[in-house]
Amino acid sequence: MILPKPHFGDDGDKLHEECGVFGVLGANEAAAVCALGLHALQHRGQEAVGITSFNGTAFTSRRGLGHVAENFSTGESLAELRGSMAAGHVRYSTTGGSDLRNVQPLYADLASGGFAVAHNGNISNATALRKELVKRGAIFHSSSDTEVIIHLVATSRYPTLLDRFVDALRMVEGAYSLICMTSQGMIACRDPLGIRPLVMGKIGDAVVFASETVALDVVGADFARQIDPGEMVEVDLDGNIRSHRPFGAPAPRPCIFEHVYFSRPDSVFNDRSVYESRKHIGIELAKERPVEADLVVPVPDSGVPAAIGYSQQSGIPFELGIIRSHYVGRTFIQPSDGARNASVKRKHNANRALVEGKRIVLIDDSIVRGTTSLKIIEMMRDAGAREVHFRVASPPTGYGCYYGVDTPERSKLLAGRMDVDAMCSFIKADSLAFVSIDGLYRAVGLAARDNACPQYCDACFTGDYPTPLTDLAGRRDAETQLPLPVAEAIA
Amino acid sequence: MILPKPHFGDDGDKLHEECGVFGVLGANEAAAVCALGLHALQHRGQEAVGITSFNGTAFTSRRGLGHVAENFSTGESLAELRGSMAAGHVRYSTTGGSDLRNVQPLYADLASGGFAVAHNGNISNATALRKELVKRGAIFHSSSDTEVIIHLVATSRYPTLLDRFVDALRMVEGAYSLICMTSQGMIACRDPLGIRPLVMGKIGDAVVFASETVALDVVGADFARQIDPGEMVEVDLDGNIRSHRPFGAPAPRPCIFEHVYFSRPDSVFNDRSVYESRKHIGIELAKERPVEADLVVPVPDSGVPAAIGYSQQSGIPFELGIIRSHYVGRTFIQPSDGARNASVKRKHNANRALVEGKRIVLIDDSIVRGTTSLKIIEMMRDAGAREVHFRVASPPTGYGCYYGVDTPERSKLLAGRMDVDAMCSFIKADSLAFVSIDGLYRAVGLAARDNACPQYCDACFTGDYPTPLTDLAGRRDAETQLPLPVAEAIA
Amino acid sequence: MILPKPHFGDDGDKLHEECGVFGVLGANEAAAVCALGLHALQHRGQEAVGITSFNGTAFTSRRGLGHVAENFSTGESLAELRGSMAAGHVRYSTTGGSDLRNVQPLYADLASGGFAVAHNGNISNATALRKELVKRGAIFHSSSDTEVIIHLVATSRYPTLLDRFVDALRMVEGAYSLICMTSQGMIACRDPLGIRPLVMGKIGDAVVFASETVALDVVGADFARQIDPGEMVEVDLDGNIRSHRPFGAPAPRPCIFEHVYFSRPDSVFNDRSVYESRKHIGIELAKERPVEADLVVPVPDSGVPAAIGYSQQSGIPFELGIIRSHYVGRTFIQPSDGARNASVKRKHNANRALVEGKRIVLIDDSIVRGTTSLKIIEMMRDAGAREVHFRVASPPTGYGCYYGVDTPERSKLLAGRMDVDAMCSFIKADSLAFVSIDGLYRAVGLAARDNACPQYCDACFTGDYPTPLTDLAGRRDAETQLPLPVAEAIA
Amino acid sequence: MILPKPHFGDDGDKLHEECGVFGVLGANEAAAVCALGLHALQHRGQEAVGITSFNGTAFTSRRGLGHVAENFSTGESLAELRGSMAAGHVRYSTTGGSDLRNVQPLYADLASGGFAVAHNGNISNATALRKELVKRGAIFHSSSDTEVIIHLVATSRYPTLLDRFVDALRMVEGAYSLICMTSQGMIACRDPLGIRPLVMGKIGDAVVFASETVALDVVGADFARQIDPGEMVEVDLDGNIRSHRPFGAPAPRPCIFEHVYFSRPDSVFNDRSVYESRKHIGIELAKERPVEADLVVPVPDSGVPAAIGYSQQSGIPFELGIIRSHYVGRTFIQPSDGARNASVKRKHNANRALVEGKRIVLIDDSIVRGTTSLKIIEMMRDAGAREVHFRVASPPTGYGCYYGVDTPERSKLLAGRMDVDAMCSFIKADSLAFVSIDGLYRAVGLAARDNACPQYCDACFTGDYPTPLTDLAGRRDAETQLPLPVAEAIA
Repeated sequence: MILPKPHFGDDGDKLHEECGVFGVLGANEAAAVCALGLHALQHRGQEAVGITSFNGTAFTSRRGLGHVAENFSTGESLAELRGSMAAGHVRYSTTGGSDLRNVQPLYADLASGGFAVAHNGNISNATALRKELVKRGAIFHSSSDTEVIIHLVATSRYPTLLDRFVDALRMVEGAYSLICMTSQGMIACRDPLGIRPLVMGKIGDAVVFASETVALDVVGADFARQIDPGEMVEVDLDGNIRSHRPFGAPAPRPCIFEHVYFSRPDSVFNDRSVYESRKHIGIELAKERPVEADLVVPVPDSGVPAAIGYSQQSGIPFELGIIRSHYVGRTFIQPSDGARNASVKRKHNANRALVEGKRIVLIDDSIVRGTTSLKIIEMMRDAGAREVHFRVASPPTGYGCYYGVDTPERSKLLAGRMDVDAMCSFIKADSLAFVSIDGLYRAVGLAARDNACPQYCDACFTGDYPTPLTDLAGRRDAETQLPLPVAEAIA
Repeated sequence: MILPKPHFGDDGDKLHEECGVFGVLGANEAAAVCALGLHALQHRGQEAVGITSFNGTAFTSRRGLGHVAENFSTGESLAELRGSMAAGHVRYSTTGGSDLRNVQPLYADLASGGFAVAHNGNISNATALRKELVKRGAIFHSSSDTEVIIHLVATSRYPTLLDRFVDALRMVEGAYSLICMTSQGMIACRDPLGIRPLVMGKIGDAVVFASETVALDVVGADFARQIDPGEMVEVDLDGNIRSHRPFGAPAPRPCIFEHVYFSRPDSVFNDRSVYESRKHIGIELAKERPVEADLVVPVPDSGVPAAIGYSQQSGIPFELGIIRSHYVGRTFIQPSDGARNASVKRKHNANRALVEGKRIVLIDDSIVRGTTSLKIIEMMRDAGAREVHFRVASPPTGYGCYYGVDTPERSKLLAGRMDVDAMCSFIKADSLAFVSIDGLYRAVGLAARDNACPQYCDACFTGDYPTPLTDLAGRRDAETQLPLPVAEAIA
Repeated sequence: MILPKPHFGDDGDKLHEECGVFGVLGANEAAAVCALGLHALQHRGQEAVGITSFNGTAFTSRRGLGHVAENFSTGESLAELRGSMAAGHVRYSTTGGSDLRNVQPLYADLASGGFAVAHNGNISNATALRKELVKRGAIFHSSSDTEVIIHLVATSRYPTLLDRFVDALRMVEGAYSLICMTSQGMIACRDPLGIRPLVMGKIGDAVVFASETVALDVVGADFARQIDPGEMVEVDLDGNIRSHRPFGAPAPRPCIFEHVYFSRPDSVFNDRSVYESRKHIGIELAKERPVEADLVVPVPDSGVPAAIGYSQQSGIPFELGIIRSHYVGRTFIQPSDGARNASVKRKHNANRALVEGKRIVLIDDSIVRGTTSLKIIEMMRDAGAREVHFRVASPPTGYGCYYGVDTPERSKLLAGRMDVDAMCSFIKADSLAFVSIDGLYRAVGLAARDNACPQYCDACFTGDYPTPLTDLAGRRDAETQLPLPVAEAIA
Repeated sequence: MILPKPHFGDDGDKLHEECGVFGVLGANEAAAVCALGLHALQHRGQEAVGITSFNGTAFTSRRGLGHVAENFSTGESLAELRGSMAAGHVRYSTTGGSDLRNVQPLYADLASGGFAVAHNGNISNATALRKELVKRGAIFHSSSDTEVIIHLVATSRYPTLLDRFVDALRMVEGAYSLICMTSQGMIACRDPLGIRPLVMGKIGDAVVFASETVALDVVGADFARQIDPGEMVEVDLDGNIRSHRPFGAPAPRPCIFEHVYFSRPDSVFNDRSVYESRKHIGIELAKERPVEADLVVPVPDSGVPAAIGYSQQSGIPFELGIIRSHYVGRTFIQPSDGARNASVKRKHNANRALVEGKRIVLIDDSIVRGTTSLKIIEMMRDAGAREVHFRVASPPTGYGCYYGVDTPERSKLLAGRMDVDAMCSFIKADSLAFVSIDGLYRAVGLAARDNACPQYCDACFTGDYPTPLTDLAGRRDAETQLPLPVAEAIA
């Protein structure tokens, strides 16, 4: 069994949300609903997909590498997944290699019966917990951090499954939005800080949980509410819903990067339209960092909403100066006679007739390594652009994420190793500017960042991590990874 | 060998260009250049792909169903295609079923040596010619109309291959842009009316031919010029170029729908930027068919340039009221509990937070069957839009195309069976309007349509077919297919 | 991932050995040696195959459904399995479904390091042990009985791995020949009764373990000795061998059916040539059950050695009256116009020119359900045989095996539901006879069966099971499965 | 599409019949009957298989690489092949590479309608004919010699299909047994010398044609008669049979190697049981070439019938001194530490316990390159055999076959480059002997070879080719390939 490598159109020059989760209870053909919902969350993970269903008696799982449509679009593929309760998972790369054993939902036969779990997030003390569990005789089947939760539940001494589940979660640190299934029903919960998203909806009497509201739209569910940080929602097989809050009420810290890039623009996150947030980042950016130019050009597609905002605020016309191919996929063999930047051009081609001789404001959502930004600016110049000003719809991304987002090491982050002027030289722009951290908070509807008690997790911009990072601290090379003091980072 | 069905994101509610062709002579790893060029033409045909290369001694072909990237992105797949000359083809469905034997380039060992041909277009008397050839003992290997050309060449009595080729083309009617290879070099030619596009470029000393300029951009070639209608360009293995015009000089009739939809917006067709044309259609549309509204919303992605034009002309803000998924693919099983229009929502979801309570101008490039338009308007209303006005960036598409475009029968074309008022009711819009035929000609840079001698082929709008349609006339059911008189159609 | 069903040429009308194991330590390319050895054991299991290797640092596994050659014949498939120690497993169906997770060697990361195990046999109290382990928090990843052993090792409190392994085995009952690997070396052991075979050999300094001597021949190893019942042989990475006998010295009970059918005729089992045993069964059968006839015809291939013996003893010529196809595989669609018994004829065709008008003695190794015997006799009569006498080279198979052999329920065994006369009528033979239980013991070189203390496990013939059958006793339907009193069975 | 290489158990050290053909008309599910019949002919060709059926209106084909069971054992694979007439083909390698286009039946749409042909044999002037046809404008789609026949039919000027077919066959030279289908029915014919076999049978009213009688047995057909050399049997769709003999009545020369090795032992060829022939070769061999020994051991499986004959004639016991694996297939990676001859041992293992210390007479059907014979003799000696005498059930194979059998060049045939003594040294036998050419003719039931007018084609033994070899003569290297004078060859 040779498994294909995942493929992205961005050459690793984007941060990647690592997972999306979806669950439904009380629907006919729950697995088909689940497949549709996961497809709507495909942007959160393209490497692998799994669905587990429960038919009243038994759990059945099906997993595969690749996209939802490649694995779950046929009747045959869904025929074995019977029942009115199902949960599924899409993943990018997670902790753990690209092995089918790591594809979620993970499933175990506990003494209390079947237990399936789909997880979005990252347990930041998983290595330490795993070591301890193995010492006590636990046998791990995957390299996934999620399996730690299952073993903690299995070995907990509390009498009920719910108690054992709470007992387990008390031991884990980090970010998690979980959808679990037992033979009694479904449990959805979110870590105490609510770092990763999770929402609830209804299709008639059926209950739906999903990482984003867009999945509710696509399956025809009405949005009910988000799961609160630290909340545990239990739904039994009759559809009765009970809410538990076993972790008290710490101040939430949802991930602000969901607004910047991860979530679909048609989703509502933390009670605010993501599209609205992105357009307003563009507006803030135009206010903070104006420039004289002929055209506002988005780097498609993620730069489009901010570019619309920038254009509306600045009055400079919004135009498609870069055309994106719909057929991005695997990398091609680069012929030795090929033009420079062919790998970028397969995805993004300059609209030469439009940009020739013009002064361009390019808008992108973020800069990670900077290599793609450099190539796109070169491409614009090759196509005859007179000036290229780069505006970024987020602050400099200078710190790694340990909460379920795939980030390069700090030393590979452009903003982790140079200041804005140096970055501007590196990407060869005529000017470069980022929205300020307070501009970003204004764009998501707040007055400013509350530095004493930030309303969001913005550690990738500030280095201000809201939880301990046990496994990280345990690593030899930890010092090179450890964040700078917050004060320095924000300054 | 079970071959997958092709899959489109449009439920058959778009016209489809049936082919793209690409050739290169004089490049190292010509097949790799070819793969990259075909990838840039993927929008012209997604069902199958083939590349034939010549290594100075022998021709080698490789064909596959699916996308270029699925078949030609690995070194292994290209390793067998050695040599400095190669030509390739992407196709949607052509005349002929979805059998690997129909995948081009077609190849034959003639008495004069190997002969490979890649064809974009459609031979409208292929059936009649084939019947005659079989009577004389020819054995056809495919059901492709292109094979007729090869048999005509094989059985021609003229002494040179070029003469035999001209002799063959004199017998065919219809549209063709051809890239041929022999052991002597490459021949590119375009039918006397130049219905389908074909351009030439250079990478250093290497010569490149392609359906669109975007393929030149992506492989790093400089655009040289388009192949003229009726021109035959011969390049020998040393790169010497000779041009022939064996068909005299009839007035050209390039396909105007290349501007409307087929070509990539970053291509230049008939010496005009396609993006510019589309934006100007939006401008014309705003002038001809204004409406009071809050937002201009494109149906992504094909409606975007016209929507930008409409917005700039009307002053109504351009906004992404519909979000397109990047992960469109196979159809999913529709769960019985699912919302209405889930099949549309997988691809296009309403940006509910934006459109709620608003008056919307929706801009799309064309209406074919109208079923998708109806679903999108329903989706906008479900998301709370107060009014939905539909503006179409082409005239009503009332006639089938017989020149290499997949069109439904006339009775399935919405504009083939009802007038604009009835169409408006059918799609449940608050208002519906199309750009006029003269508005379209203005948008592509002309003063108006010259009805005596139209500058483009616009038969899909007017029924004014520039060539005889021999095979069509020969069919039993021809009368139901035959075009209306031109006068009536334009009125 | 759709997994093919296993396919056998016998329509389920043979008993199937469920597994073969092979291990090698100290060889270059240990995995390649292992693949070759497993190929020689392919007759012991055709459904799935796995190899695990250790490169001094890490364990790597590769598993697949189907034959060894389908999974391990390419360099690519073996390239990842580096190192000088490897163990592998072929299996028919085992306890546990046809899921890759059940394919052995099973592997676990224990607190002491990696632990891999390949198992031939069946743990007859696995269900009871598993239930207890799950209650204590163990999470099982397969449905294999073998995984019980790993969890018992993981949770044992003894200080060394060897002690924990012995501790684990003390809790299991049934049949097991095990090859285990740790980062310290290899452990091979056989259950106290030695029900399933296991031998040791040497290739130079490399140590080899295998289910049968034929695997030693094929890899070029010299036979050293069999592993004794209850013996545990430990080999460290330097090749030092230590033998342990932690289970005392119970009288051995190796499986006599290895002589009858399971082992390859070119293997030596329990210090006796299997071919010799089979030929002598034929000799005993000719003495006990003579018949006047023209030809001795084996049912190929398993009946051949006994037929040679019968022919030599009786003087009736040995002839190939049935020709076996080499291309047996999947079942074909039976055309409605086809002849009767086409499914048998695909594998076995009558040699009509030879058998026409003749009196035939057919020799087969055993009768399980009897359906194939019936069809073969019909086929011989259709081909013109005048008389068909059936002689069976084993006693009636009246009881199920719980030691790693796939047997139908007793009610499906022909000898489980009727006496010899009724069986003769059922298969429509002119006469039917089986070798006696004492004849069988004589054929394997003993004077007779020692009823007080039988020298072999012959439970399938006698119902005399040498171990408790805990799981079986725990089943509802146990009474229908339970053996008859031995006295009655032997009589 | 990556096609697997064929795999054989003999390391190329056998001659291979290149094809088997099967056709049926008048049966329900004709394609399923055809699949079953082809499966019975699998030994005649393992590389590829195809079936074409006719449903009264249209022809449908399905082709695949590999075995019949891999391609035609499922209902799905046969569902598309509807109708009551079908013909199929198995092939080893033919003239033409391993491309699906070369897999037969070949099919063409002629002016008279569909025409399908399955061919066993080889056209020895195909290259010359093809060159001429291409010159006249024919386009070939395969590299198969069989396609020449179709083009000759397509371009013949005779009025009826049957006349055109005869006209075509008059131009070809060599060996052919053909099964053709048109929309009018089936035509089976055999070249004037009847080199390759072809028989006719009946299942009720359905007519069956096949290469061998074993295929009739397996599909439940009664043997009617063989098709005579030079006969053309026409069956219309109502089942009416007409026989034509357009080629006069030359003396037949069927291939004697069908008796030696190609045909299944349970087939009847040229009115004689193949098993009987082989056993009698053994008898002749024992008479001509006796030896004192303890055991007669066949090289399985092809040597078994002759070994039985040798044993019966000599009185030396027949024993299985070599055990053949049922799981032969792809070649394995040879581990560097492996024993010598592991590649042979995977297929054939010495029965050490039996042969140790014994004097062995090994019986094989033929010697081609001799490499396998050498390895088997080494293996017997490694296993302790005291003496190894090699007896071959055919005369020395010194000449290539140009009639549809895959033979090495003469210089690679052991008997093509050395005499019997040298061969004996090469294979390291204690003695080596072949049956004489007259002994072989006696074994097939004749008094002796009629040297003036041989009753069989025995060119591989004698170099006496019964037809001109036009293509061979046209080759540069012809002199090294050309046969020796017959006199010398037979002497």
